[in-house]
Amino acid sequence: MGKIKKKAVLLVSGGLDSATVLAMARAEGYECYALSFDYGQKHRAELDAAKNIAQRLGVKEQQTLHLDLNVFGGSALTDDSIDVPAAQKEITQGIPVTYVPARNTIFLSMALAWAEVLQADDIFIGVNAVDYSGYPDCRPEFIQSFETMANLATKVAVEGHHLKIHTPLIDMTKAQIIKAGLELGIDYSMTVSCYAANEQGRACGVCDSCQLRRRGFEAAGIADPTLYL
Amino acid sequence: MGKIKKKAVLLVSGGLDSATVLAMARAEGYECYALSFDYGQKHRAELDAAKNIAQRLGVKEQQTLHLDLNVFGGSALTDDSIDVPAAQKEITQGIPVTYVPARNTIFLSMALAWAEVLQADDIFIGVNAVDYSGYPDCRPEFIQSFETMANLATKVAVEGHHLKIHTPLIDMTKAQIIKAGLELGIDYSMTVSCYAANEQGRACGVCDSCQLRRRGFEAAGIADPTLYL
Repeated sequence: MGKIKKKAVLLVSGGLDSATVLAMARAEGYECYALSFDYGQKHRAELDAAKNIAQRLGVKEQQTLHLDLNVFGGSALTDDSIDVPAAQKEITQGIPVTYVPARNTIFLSMALAWAEVLQADDIFIGVNAVDYSGYPDCRPEFIQSFETMANLATKVAVEGHHLKIHTPLIDMTKAQIIKAGLELGIDYSMTVSCYAANEQGRACGVCDSCQLRRRGFEAAGIADPTLYL
Repeated sequence: MGKIKKKAVLLVSGGLDSATVLAMARAEGYECYALSFDYGQKHRAELDAAKNIAQRLGVKEQQTLHLDLNVFGGSALTDDSIDVPAAQKEITQGIPVTYVPARNTIFLSMALAWAEVLQADDIFIGVNAVDYSGYPDCRPEFIQSFETMANLATKVAVEGHHLKIHTPLIDMTKAQIIKAGLELGIDYSMTVSCYAANEQGRACGVCDSCQLRRRGFEAAGIADPTLYL
């Protein structure tokens, strides 16, 4: 008799980090449900990348949900009146203009809804506190407080399940993430990290996200497979 | 010189409770931003009611956002394969099939995003723990944990603001809510509470939500202005 796989809901953006998380969860034996969001982001190539990665890594189901976050604006990623910063010498200090208000809170809440319907006790998110992006909702204390809240919010929690938010990348450097992913067979040329990628997913090479990624490959001593403009 | 009003984001469903909360926040002097959700609910008349109530009560802005919750299903309110229960003698015990997985978590997360963009420190939600609906995400301990999480999630919190989730109805009976709303001049015939309301907003009179509402008017000793089928 085959072992029944545990179900997990994973936030898959199409970027390097969440692709690595998906490969890790799969290697741990989870049956994976990949969740992506069309939230009005300018870098829409990541949505195609998310679908391709989910398919390549053999998820049970993939959903791309529409979210009206661009109605609120307030971020360079969704608001046409704010440019994505590029060509800066140093990665921005403080909270950057690419921060999307409450994004991870909303994404995790939607994952929580799907997890509850699936009766999955596990949610995975590729947040990282080392090569820190400056986003408040990538910090371990945020994740811990979300998990506490989630366990009061849901029917399954009331019925005695414990929902866990997994953050396998939280203490890893970008170089360590890349090495771990390569060992699990990820083709990182499929992933799109750039905030200003063109329709074919080619990266600008100069935004904060591109810089973090490029430095990760350099530090790992691995040739950067990213498709640049 | 006029006093600058504090901004608040309010979840306005179109029902009796959230209309009362809106009137309360307005009476307290808040500049009100009303947020409603088209989440695939079968009782779509509440969306029109929400818009009408927001307009009548003079909000600064009203938004109805689309949410793909019906993709997940799992609730009688969004899933065509589950009927809204009707004509039961007693209000359902335990968590009813009308519970929408993680709904208040998602709604509050969206409100949090808008509050952050508006730089509003106050969010209002009409949850109630007395005439308890059996929904885990209406309990005070859930609201408290959401507030804690929200204050770790956002840029404004990192910058020293404190975000507060207001639940003015939490300890009130339905009769007390109705009396408070009438004192603030609410016309409850504009509100739609029924889970199975028809397109004109006429109520079935037999679902849990209708029963709770009808008993509230009875207990308050006030003629029920609800438009029934």
